[in-house]
Amino acid sequence: MLDCDVLVVGAGVLGLSSAYHIKRNDPKKRVLIIDRNGGPGQGNSAKSEGAFRNIFTSETNYLLADSTIDWFFHLQNNLGYDLKLAPIGYLWLYSEAHHSRLEYAFDTMRRRGVELRTFEKEDLKRMVPDLVTDFNGDEEAELLGLEDVDVGVLGVKCGSVDADALVRSYESEFLKLGGEIRYSTTATRLILKPEEELGIPGEPFVWQESRVAGAETSRGDILAGTSVVAAGVWSERLLDPIGFDAAMRPKKRQLFVFKDPRLKGLLDVKELNEYGALPLTILPRAGVYLKGELTEGSIWLGCADELGRSFGLEDDPQPEEDYYTDNIYHVLVKYFPCFKDVRPVNMWAGQYAINSFDGIPVVAPAPGMIYVGAASGSGIMKSDALGRIVAALHAGEEEAELYGGRLFRVADIGIADRNVERETFII
Amino acid sequence: MLDCDVLVVGAGVLGLSSAYHIKRNDPKKRVLIIDRNGGPGQGNSAKSEGAFRNIFTSETNYLLADSTIDWFFHLQNNLGYDLKLAPIGYLWLYSEAHHSRLEYAFDTMRRRGVELRTFEKEDLKRMVPDLVTDFNGDEEAELLGLEDVDVGVLGVKCGSVDADALVRSYESEFLKLGGEIRYSTTATRLILKPEEELGIPGEPFVWQESRVAGAETSRGDILAGTSVVAAGVWSERLLDPIGFDAAMRPKKRQLFVFKDPRLKGLLDVKELNEYGALPLTILPRAGVYLKGELTEGSIWLGCADELGRSFGLEDDPQPEEDYYTDNIYHVLVKYFPCFKDVRPVNMWAGQYAINSFDGIPVVAPAPGMIYVGAASGSGIMKSDALGRIVAALHAGEEEAELYGGRLFRVADIGIADRNVERETFII
Repeated sequence: MLDCDVLVVGAGVLGLSSAYHIKRNDPKKRVLIIDRNGGPGQGNSAKSEGAFRNIFTSETNYLLADSTIDWFFHLQNNLGYDLKLAPIGYLWLYSEAHHSRLEYAFDTMRRRGVELRTFEKEDLKRMVPDLVTDFNGDEEAELLGLEDVDVGVLGVKCGSVDADALVRSYESEFLKLGGEIRYSTTATRLILKPEEELGIPGEPFVWQESRVAGAETSRGDILAGTSVVAAGVWSERLLDPIGFDAAMRPKKRQLFVFKDPRLKGLLDVKELNEYGALPLTILPRAGVYLKGELTEGSIWLGCADELGRSFGLEDDPQPEEDYYTDNIYHVLVKYFPCFKDVRPVNMWAGQYAINSFDGIPVVAPAPGMIYVGAASGSGIMKSDALGRIVAALHAGEEEAELYGGRLFRVADIGIADRNVERETFII
Repeated sequence: MLDCDVLVVGAGVLGLSSAYHIKRNDPKKRVLIIDRNGGPGQGNSAKSEGAFRNIFTSETNYLLADSTIDWFFHLQNNLGYDLKLAPIGYLWLYSEAHHSRLEYAFDTMRRRGVELRTFEKEDLKRMVPDLVTDFNGDEEAELLGLEDVDVGVLGVKCGSVDADALVRSYESEFLKLGGEIRYSTTATRLILKPEEELGIPGEPFVWQESRVAGAETSRGDILAGTSVVAAGVWSERLLDPIGFDAAMRPKKRQLFVFKDPRLKGLLDVKELNEYGALPLTILPRAGVYLKGELTEGSIWLGCADELGRSFGLEDDPQPEEDYYTDNIYHVLVKYFPCFKDVRPVNMWAGQYAINSFDGIPVVAPAPGMIYVGAASGSGIMKSDALGRIVAALHAGEEEAELYGGRLFRVADIGIADRNVERETFII
């Protein structure tokens, strides 16, 4: 009487990866993805900055990202998907004092085999001539609380990926295996049923073992053996009514795009990568980050606002131009005066699904259900590993084999038996 | 220019305890509590079952509760507050198989010095003649998935407290020290200001260090050096807008009260405590618990519904009589046939602030603010310890001294450096 073995709610990158790996593990299973949008990744996946890094303080995040990055290169180099991978690096800029506080974290990463390059101020000046490193005597900079740039730390296995191409590669591989997708189909409610139905109105009762049995959707009920909830920030709309904690809160994040002759130096930096593009560069203050986007010869810029930026689900979050002009601009133009009077040519906003407890994603089961989410803004770069963990959990395996062969204990990233270190390198 | 040194939002048990201990530590500080209700504890504190226990699997919860219980007895025996303390015990009923799975947890508690008494079936039959322990051949019981009762475990340092009397005792002690309370005053928004104000419209900007500087209320702004958010499930209304995660989700919990001659046996049990009242007794199935309530000669009964009971803040949650008649009743009447055809004479509902990650409360700072909450349904019995931890955090101390002298590392119960074991004995 089931409509499918596995129903995956959400054709974002986590839903697609989960569906693909479940289907790949067991091609006889009927796996169906539904999404309220008309195509893959049209929630927050495609709104992302499209960046990846293996630079995390927690071993868990490192494993998830590092193996997923390897998978990206496998998709592009061996399976022929043009993901526009550009390992331009991530470049953290620090004052001397700030950098020395983080030495232990960087040492831990190096011991894992993570490739980091450290640059002194003089190197940075040579490589990125547009960067201002010293604010000595600049009263405005002092007012802004700006720190000098003394050190740069470059993560090498880091860079850009085309998020849209990535979700389409998963979609394509999934469909090749015989997976099914229904777009423009909104899951409105998870269906709870007792494990053993008695046919009494009002079931499930509190004395019955109940389980998720599928979903009500805008195109009728879909009954499934297992329902995978991978709806990103929207997961709370499905999980709150059944009393399952999505373990995240949605928070808006904005991106601003610049294309201006005055910024051409940022697409012609030296020695940092083979592309000449500014790595994804994190300024010492105010959470501002920017990167050279090779696909369109532009600069993409965001800003991590923490205290003061509300939590709360929005269906269509809007960018705020004054967030750039009144907030980011004043800091940005001090470090990069080339932005003087340059205004964004494009901007958009999406939402992060922030896990405030430890900053690490969640893959957690309930009867008849698997929830994957709470990726805290770095879900794309962990997508392949998370999909494999979902598939392992679905298959009842204790360990998931990540791409490249490393093993990951599935329960570590759940809730009931969670065993992760809190991530401190959240951008 | 401050209206007070410390503003405490919420005159529930956690707010009152926090305010009292801050004021006690430093009587010169001006400490002001506001609450939207007309008196103390009128949110969820007074809706609680008024039960306490030192039986927890996590060391953290044990310390919080055990020391708070000692404080309750100090309040009653030395300070003269009639809290109607009745150490009637908590009685967990188990099948043999279920009990043996928990042996390790009970051994851990015993090693901490927790007094537990274990009873065999024959003991239980003698002590609680109304209890049915065997369902051999009862098809209905099988359908309900009921487990036989083979073992009872009694927590001795457990029982009843009058939640209303408790909040009034804190209120009274706080007022004696010169603390101030404004009732019927609703905090509508936390005020964020930059650490260094520049007087520019739009502050705080993202490049400024910002802090909570007080609250807008229904009776005007109140500026404070530190704001303590202790508004229980309502804390999310204040914290979401500033993007601080309350680390809990609200979930309704209901209580049903019975007063009927058929239940008199439950107020006349033997050997379990000196009162003859049924201990707070947890049935083996369906999360049903009940206790003899001495103050009114009644039975109070609740049921922990997990999957299927929605998350979501409600200002005035309503009890559902059919939750008793269709759900709880069928299980209850099998274990306690004396409930046959007995209907509740009173019922009400409140909300738990459930921390799904580890089931342990949170005391976490942000600039200018301390949040205390996420008590997961057992805040009253941990209230004194939590208030002392808030006061220690406010004073900048690394350790809080709990009542009786045990030390507690403040950061352990925060978010940034959280160090607790997940609680598994949640009712």
